[in-house]
Amino acid sequence: MTHSQHANESIKPLEGGNVASPRGFSVGATYVGMKTFGDNEKLDLAILLSESPCVGAGVFTQNKFAAAPVHLSRENLEEAQPRAIIVNSGCANAGVGDQGMIDARAMTSIAASKLNLSRSEILIASTGVIGAELPMGIIQNGIESISLDSSGHDFAKAMMTTDTHPKEFAVEIEIEGVKGTIAGAAKGVGMIHPDMATMLSFITTDLAIDSGFLKSVIKEAADQTFNMVSVDGDTSTNDTLIILANGLAKNTPIDGGTNGEKFSDALFEVCKALAKMIARDGEGATKLLEVQVEQAQSLPDARIAARTITASPLLKAAIYGNDPNWGRVLMALGRSGANIAENKVSIFMNDICMMEAGKPIPFFRDAAITAMQKPEVVIRVQLGLGDGNATAWGCDLTEEYVHINGAYTT
Amino acid sequence: MTHSQHANESIKPLEGGNVASPRGFSVGATYVGMKTFGDNEKLDLAILLSESPCVGAGVFTQNKFAAAPVHLSRENLEEAQPRAIIVNSGCANAGVGDQGMIDARAMTSIAASKLNLSRSEILIASTGVIGAELPMGIIQNGIESISLDSSGHDFAKAMMTTDTHPKEFAVEIEIEGVKGTIAGAAKGVGMIHPDMATMLSFITTDLAIDSGFLKSVIKEAADQTFNMVSVDGDTSTNDTLIILANGLAKNTPIDGGTNGEKFSDALFEVCKALAKMIARDGEGATKLLEVQVEQAQSLPDARIAARTITASPLLKAAIYGNDPNWGRVLMALGRSGANIAENKVSIFMNDICMMEAGKPIPFFRDAAITAMQKPEVVIRVQLGLGDGNATAWGCDLTEEYVHINGAYTT
Repeated sequence: MTHSQHANESIKPLEGGNVASPRGFSVGATYVGMKTFGDNEKLDLAILLSESPCVGAGVFTQNKFAAAPVHLSRENLEEAQPRAIIVNSGCANAGVGDQGMIDARAMTSIAASKLNLSRSEILIASTGVIGAELPMGIIQNGIESISLDSSGHDFAKAMMTTDTHPKEFAVEIEIEGVKGTIAGAAKGVGMIHPDMATMLSFITTDLAIDSGFLKSVIKEAADQTFNMVSVDGDTSTNDTLIILANGLAKNTPIDGGTNGEKFSDALFEVCKALAKMIARDGEGATKLLEVQVEQAQSLPDARIAARTITASPLLKAAIYGNDPNWGRVLMALGRSGANIAENKVSIFMNDICMMEAGKPIPFFRDAAITAMQKPEVVIRVQLGLGDGNATAWGCDLTEEYVHINGAYTT
Repeated sequence: MTHSQHANESIKPLEGGNVASPRGFSVGATYVGMKTFGDNEKLDLAILLSESPCVGAGVFTQNKFAAAPVHLSRENLEEAQPRAIIVNSGCANAGVGDQGMIDARAMTSIAASKLNLSRSEILIASTGVIGAELPMGIIQNGIESISLDSSGHDFAKAMMTTDTHPKEFAVEIEIEGVKGTIAGAAKGVGMIHPDMATMLSFITTDLAIDSGFLKSVIKEAADQTFNMVSVDGDTSTNDTLIILANGLAKNTPIDGGTNGEKFSDALFEVCKALAKMIARDGEGATKLLEVQVEQAQSLPDARIAARTITASPLLKAAIYGNDPNWGRVLMALGRSGANIAENKVSIFMNDICMMEAGKPIPFFRDAAITAMQKPEVVIRVQLGLGDGNATAWGCDLTEEYVHINGAYTT
């Protein structure tokens, strides 16, 4: 199912929405001192609590050094209906050997006591330095002293690392006359100093959803949104996307059909908005890069082509310099692995055609440079081979990216 | 066969060696005006000629937009014994539709007339702008007026694009009491403005080599050297490696055994030296990065792990900043696809152990920073799973890389 083609008018953005907007969710956030860098919001530990058990689903990193919180959350999602998520920034609890799992379990134990829940009802996520152990003393104090009356926005703030601003988006839809909300918070702007591994995203809804259906739509939405974002091609040890549906809207549980489509479209909009915020806030980025691949022989071809083009350092540097360098698009496309017939390829940059059916099209260079000076550059590639379509998002590559990621110890 | 372990004392570097050092090779080079940028050597067209037919072999780009010269050289290598190579810089003859092959064929026709050879005895390579047609008028004038009495060094200079210096290396070996020379020239420092696609490398030898054996050893050497270099992960439309063996040393043709091993070792040394020169001269680079992966479960695992670590933008930025950020090595290793047992991984940076058997090792951060300030940073990763070993080369990621590749039109 592709969503991007049909905008659904019954999906209404919710101004000021946050993960606590859907019925029955509350947030507590605090600063315990783990996040010792950056001038962004001084919050580094937060709890998201649902007043009733949720249907939950998650999508996690494929990195073979998946961090302990990833393993534990995956386990707990299998075992129980989640009630709460604990997130911390400043320390990834990754690359620390067996201590990682010991501390991850301890974190859920402390939260279970605090919230009067069983350990398996608690999911956790960490983002921060790889190779440093969690400071369990201050985490314990932090969790125990958190009051669940923070603003819902604080959840997004507490997981920020080098993010320049919190990332939130929410929509409302009606299912059988019942108004429901889908809200999300995300962080992640690259793999960030010092190893601020990670894209984290948490979505809440008060709609009732069938568990199997939720698992399938969240995976599909992730494939089309978060998995199509590339800031630097480096995937993290801690990437986590979790959705909690507490059903307090009391609709008939959604398990497909028209309601399923409506929910899936709305979820896609939330994920896409967050994914684009992540791409646009890429480390050092000055522009959002959107790459649309059309008419690929297959969907996997379209996806790999869009992702490879989005991730090309050379193209990203050209986007930064307003250089209409379509040759770099061609090069990245050629190495992507997607099937290509050279004489069928067309390339557009911000709607200016630069190659048509495999031949370069003369264009006014100055006009192209002007077109590229916008805060969003859209590259459209038509392959003329089939109906595989995909969109990927990224950002330009700037001196600032190098500075952020290199210039700490010199 | 892995060469790097056993340095062969009978391989002698040849001071000042170049592609015309082996018997019977001559070079002509000129400037026709195609290369309009950079302050490097003003030569952009060159001919390498052997006075007798050669056994030839080549390794070419896997990019699906392989340029016309790549197609034509591959064809001609199948058809005839090569006598000459024509190379130009400034224009890649790629991404120009059918005109690419027309111009490539014309280039061989003009050279065939000039040199009194058949077209199929001529190989060609181009590097430069993608999407611009070859200026055939000035190329024709250039080829017709070239005199074959240039210095052999001029061949390496004529193919430079944003290379900061020519890349040459030669060795001498003795086969059955006969002295033979193996010499190479290369260019390539990334995918370079404006789309200076390409790694080009040409190797000459006066040793007599069996054709099948030559094909197999050049492929093997490429896999262990040029194919283990990553400047920015972007592969070009024009990558070409060609070896010509004219047999004028009059040894018994080498087709394996001890002589084959000796030749293969020497060829590996030439390719490795050139590959390291390319990595060290990466666009904007200040340091050579060498990544050694040991004890992988298989050779492909070792190679993909070494290449993925070498290509990580985050690690490359950390290397630039002298940041002993081994978490980024772990992250890249985890996403490389290589098999990994987390509790068996050890990581060293310039011989300082930072992780052992999956656990972080406390180290003196200042000492590590000092160790990283050398012009070569060696990262050694032990996987503890088998005997797959591989080495990859790259460079650090600097603000200058972004500047070179982005700051043209602003």
